[in-house]
Amino acid sequence: MRPMEGITVVVDLDEMRIIGYRDRVVVPVPKAEGTDYRAAKQRPPFAPETKPGVVVQPAGKGFRIDGHVIRWSNWDFHLSYDARAGLVVSLASVYDAEKGARRRVLYRGYVSEVFVPYMDPAEEWYFRTFFDAGEYGFGLWASPLEPMTDCPANAEFMDGYYAAQDGEPVKLPNVFCVFERYSGDAAWRHTELGIPKQMISEVRQEVSLVVRMVGALGNYDYVTDWEFKTSGSIKVGVSLTGILEVKGTPYTHTDQITTDVHGSLLAENTIAVYHDHFVTYYLDLDIDGLNNTFIKSKLKTARVADSSGVPRRSYWTVTREAANMEADAHVEIGSVPAELLVVNPNKKTKMGNHVGYRLIANGVPVASLLSDDDYPQMRASYGKKQVWVTPYNKSEKWAAGLYVDNSRGDDNLAAWSQRNRAIKNVDIVVWHTVGFHHIPYQEDFPLMPMLSSGFELRPSNFFESNPLIRLRSTKQTHLPNCTLIV
Amino acid sequence: MRPMEGITVVVDLDEMRIIGYRDRVVVPVPKAEGTDYRAAKQRPPFAPETKPGVVVQPAGKGFRIDGHVIRWSNWDFHLSYDARAGLVVSLASVYDAEKGARRRVLYRGYVSEVFVPYMDPAEEWYFRTFFDAGEYGFGLWASPLEPMTDCPANAEFMDGYYAAQDGEPVKLPNVFCVFERYSGDAAWRHTELGIPKQMISEVRQEVSLVVRMVGALGNYDYVTDWEFKTSGSIKVGVSLTGILEVKGTPYTHTDQITTDVHGSLLAENTIAVYHDHFVTYYLDLDIDGLNNTFIKSKLKTARVADSSGVPRRSYWTVTREAANMEADAHVEIGSVPAELLVVNPNKKTKMGNHVGYRLIANGVPVASLLSDDDYPQMRASYGKKQVWVTPYNKSEKWAAGLYVDNSRGDDNLAAWSQRNRAIKNVDIVVWHTVGFHHIPYQEDFPLMPMLSSGFELRPSNFFESNPLIRLRSTKQTHLPNCTLIV
Repeated sequence: MRPMEGITVVVDLDEMRIIGYRDRVVVPVPKAEGTDYRAAKQRPPFAPETKPGVVVQPAGKGFRIDGHVIRWSNWDFHLSYDARAGLVVSLASVYDAEKGARRRVLYRGYVSEVFVPYMDPAEEWYFRTFFDAGEYGFGLWASPLEPMTDCPANAEFMDGYYAAQDGEPVKLPNVFCVFERYSGDAAWRHTELGIPKQMISEVRQEVSLVVRMVGALGNYDYVTDWEFKTSGSIKVGVSLTGILEVKGTPYTHTDQITTDVHGSLLAENTIAVYHDHFVTYYLDLDIDGLNNTFIKSKLKTARVADSSGVPRRSYWTVTREAANMEADAHVEIGSVPAELLVVNPNKKTKMGNHVGYRLIANGVPVASLLSDDDYPQMRASYGKKQVWVTPYNKSEKWAAGLYVDNSRGDDNLAAWSQRNRAIKNVDIVVWHTVGFHHIPYQEDFPLMPMLSSGFELRPSNFFESNPLIRLRSTKQTHLPNCTLIV
Repeated sequence: MRPMEGITVVVDLDEMRIIGYRDRVVVPVPKAEGTDYRAAKQRPPFAPETKPGVVVQPAGKGFRIDGHVIRWSNWDFHLSYDARAGLVVSLASVYDAEKGARRRVLYRGYVSEVFVPYMDPAEEWYFRTFFDAGEYGFGLWASPLEPMTDCPANAEFMDGYYAAQDGEPVKLPNVFCVFERYSGDAAWRHTELGIPKQMISEVRQEVSLVVRMVGALGNYDYVTDWEFKTSGSIKVGVSLTGILEVKGTPYTHTDQITTDVHGSLLAENTIAVYHDHFVTYYLDLDIDGLNNTFIKSKLKTARVADSSGVPRRSYWTVTREAANMEADAHVEIGSVPAELLVVNPNKKTKMGNHVGYRLIANGVPVASLLSDDDYPQMRASYGKKQVWVTPYNKSEKWAAGLYVDNSRGDDNLAAWSQRNRAIKNVDIVVWHTVGFHHIPYQEDFPLMPMLSSGFELRPSNFFESNPLIRLRSTKQTHLPNCTLIV
């Protein structure tokens, strides 16, 4: 938060020598006041307190960790660490009580790339177009999780290991946490008030399982969650916090600013530069088997025939379009009203519906605003659509390509997809980007409160009926008697 | 879930006499199997169990209820019950520790209308275009909340009262609950890995306050939450659960269906009809005072000058447009990249930014797809834009008009707004619609798992800096020692 603006140092990494130095911009270094976020450095006045709260589980934890396999309620999945991707979920399957069988959902899912372009064309800033996974390692920069704050008291932690450049194993302690969430919400409910002299009320407490990793990429912290639900849903969340990239400036008040400064004045001599975050997920869904098809269920307005005899004039109906080729599956979410599904065209429910899951975005869709002829855009040319679907190819793991440093976009998701391969009833991979345009505000200084988005993978004709109905209530009718050990 | 399809009964309410009866459609009544959602009616096989979990607060609750005023951490607000709106939040203000002052945020907020049009033009269905607040009473149909499931163990409950048609007061027990949420998430964090031989890690547990009401409108249950955060944010959530409206049909398998049946076959002889939910919020924001202005901060791509000397070609920048008149503030969210703010143009931060809050939608924006000449659309003609802004007018409380039964759209939000009144630097009201297009799936049978959306009102240059930094950690370093009293 105290930038020394305008200094460029060029280092020859072969020689390990500074070969260039330039101090182009002379502006004051912002003062220290208010920049330290550590608890020990705070002085009154303090904000009003909150009271501590802890989840207790009187009957113990409901999940088991067998090596890298997590087993909880109706879910089984494998959890592994990768220096580039971070948290990798694989072989996620859900137990279908009605069928008495375990059924496949997600072969593998992870963060494939995090593209963060800054919007200042100045000499010291134009190149700040970070690919956090491909250039830095989303897992390499994972932060050890703090018990009781990063994850609740009832969490278990797992370590990760990677091979250092000299081949030695390096341990990342507490790189993941796993915990059961008791959010205080219901999983489903209904109160029937329409029957005279009778009130039926059925409510079930929501319990879910969360696995979490935090990528602390330099200044920024990304909290990445995979939440498994007894309904069969997987909710994927990404929350941004940490420190903004700031630029030194002579300005101390917005009244002094007469040109585009490419950011927001957050404190004296401190501009937080406009930027984006595009978190691209690799989702190799295997819905009830290997071969799947991507479906767009489009909602279209229809007219009521004048001869119908009813005064209604319109309604909407649904047209299901199966994507045959990759070009059929480049989706700008929200451009037309549609639901996006991955179905298994070889498996039907008893009613005859193809078993499937659908993708629900939990935020306003965001696309890259950079020009197509701009290098960062060429490198992340997949960033103008939120969804791509490719046939599985073991060499296509990283949205921005295998080698991202100095890449020019010739080996990325959009380049592969230009081949326009067949994607119907084959093993497919869905690539989904969760994006944020980030205009900074003063509340982001010196450290921003969590800003969250994500998506849900929700069973959609996967089960014959709501699987939650077969889940007996975990209603806790008696409060635990607790004393605090200090 | 067992419709007797096609019977229309006409009742003369003055005479209290049936004056018409028609049985037009003869289809089988669906069988009972699988339609009962009650725990006591379930038979094996059951789904794998989950373990109970309870939040305990070793130092007690952090909020106080003084009559109808709730005081918690930095928030004060008034909570009241209204038969039409349900839960009404008013006079919400936040304590600014840095300024040592309480500052106004929301004068009043509530669900103004819930429009639910079904998409089947048949004689028995075309008129099912419910206005749940205006026609039925979103509060009148509020459900008593169940302790331990609708709301967690640490919740407190409040009653509501309304005047019955004979003038007698009617008590709705447990109509609201209030509780502190310990979601297991962090409110903010940062791990600094870039300083050699040092690792700084600061993480704060998120604690928020939730107030909740459930409107159980016949078959459907709407869980409406207002969550107050120590960051200054208010998160508003609406979750849908309950029972779908179903239609009798001769079909028992999708292979038999050759025409548009206007819904999804969920079980034998059971079609769940396509429909929408549009939940319209009335938000009389008073950001740090009465007179406010609505701002669209538009993101626009700019070109880098060829003479710049850098290889970058583009970036985006921000243009702030203040809405002068109502017509400037009809927003289809996502149609152009923009942030939507309400600012107080008479108050600035030390840096010179107008103090404000912004509206962040937590889902893909949804608009009505009905034709403009269709009666339900005329009545809910505000439903094609997610945001409207009006000058405060005490008679404009209900988005679909004061008298909704048999309305024709001549007294609704869109009609009032046609006057195109001045809205700059006056007391303004923001109307925000959270929408769902609902294509039913088999998982929604016999009762649907929660489906959620909502929005966040987030301080944006309201505070001089992140207020969370002044909030001392509530980190619970010791686990409570608990025994279960059975």
